[in-house]
Amino acid sequence: MHMAVVLFDGYTALDIIGGYEVLANIPGMKVDFAAVDKGLVAADTGRLGIVAYKRLDDIGATDLLYIPGGPGVRSAIADAALMDHVRRLHASASWTVSVCNGAEILGAAGLIDGKEVTTNWFARDRVRAYGATVLEKRFHRDGTIVTGAGVSASIDAALYLAALIGGEELSRILQLGIEYYPAPPFGSSTPDLQPARAKQIIEGVEKSASQRLAARTIPF
Amino acid sequence: MHMAVVLFDGYTALDIIGGYEVLANIPGMKVDFAAVDKGLVAADTGRLGIVAYKRLDDIGATDLLYIPGGPGVRSAIADAALMDHVRRLHASASWTVSVCNGAEILGAAGLIDGKEVTTNWFARDRVRAYGATVLEKRFHRDGTIVTGAGVSASIDAALYLAALIGGEELSRILQLGIEYYPAPPFGSSTPDLQPARAKQIIEGVEKSASQRLAARTIPF
Repeated sequence: MHMAVVLFDGYTALDIIGGYEVLANIPGMKVDFAAVDKGLVAADTGRLGIVAYKRLDDIGATDLLYIPGGPGVRSAIADAALMDHVRRLHASASWTVSVCNGAEILGAAGLIDGKEVTTNWFARDRVRAYGATVLEKRFHRDGTIVTGAGVSASIDAALYLAALIGGEELSRILQLGIEYYPAPPFGSSTPDLQPARAKQIIEGVEKSASQRLAARTIPF
Repeated sequence: MHMAVVLFDGYTALDIIGGYEVLANIPGMKVDFAAVDKGLVAADTGRLGIVAYKRLDDIGATDLLYIPGGPGVRSAIADAALMDHVRRLHASASWTVSVCNGAEILGAAGLIDGKEVTTNWFARDRVRAYGATVLEKRFHRDGTIVTGAGVSASIDAALYLAALIGGEELSRILQLGIEYYPAPPFGSSTPDLQPARAKQIIEGVEKSASQRLAARTIPF
């Protein structure tokens, strides 16, 4: 199988790496990191760069299209070339995955109208605007589209997809490989049960993201 | 605060990104990805490259030294320049973090003799050989050294450290930011409770890692 990871400026790194670390270790999986143009692509912090060593143009088809989120989604959606590649590669793929507000990219590409998806808690209204039904779930499948909630949900969504691809035993082995037996030091919960103050802080960080992206200091 | 993430050929990406996504979002944290030489550094899959935009030589001191694991640890330990930097930067740091078998790097640097640490389940004997007491825990602190278990434990270890740095409320906000309310599709457990067959497969993958690293195909 072949997996294409779509990079764009201002992605959130764990949206990508949580799923990549699971799916890239499926036996026989070939992985390419690709963007509209080759080169280094900066994460939302401006302090991490991942290399896109293929142009999306150079990927004729893929089995698994992987689309992260991040504050860069807004400008990604405005990139007509990127959106054309998303539609084209989705049409070729057995599976399309979005994580976090990467679901907005699927929405803007016209791929989730009338479908059930999940997304980052603060992006739900924006994803609903594309005609999707947004579920408050960690991961969800509708047809060939698997969506994950925010950031670290990429891990759970990828383990779920790995089982669809290769069965539960494979998924459990991949879970052992990444030693994913979580123990959050202050417990687990849901985003909706967090204090209003915490949600406001995170929403503020997300809203100020365009300034942070503009002020990027990664010395590429 | 300043965080230096140490890159070396053959790291496991989630060892890094799980912790980075938490710690880099502590307000005021400055992050640098550094290696012995500048340039792209390939993950253990050979299909992901992260840029080291600083030489370790160019980092005089850091507050938080972050050391991932991966099959590349064996050659990292043999790199005298890298090990000198680890010792030097650890001496300057308020906190040193290792994830997964990154604890072997701390061990080879002479930094955990007589200390309590945790590590990836399959690296426990190798870490014990450096004089450390290895605990079967998700994360642990001994003095200024915080160690995480395998791969995805980087998230839990970083949330724990974030609370040491900035308090529990900050850590909970960071947890919301990465929406870390895990829901592994086939449940949680511990590595030690996995079937012997699963453990043998992962150990086999780890043992064959040097061949995989040699066969790296990332087209840098």
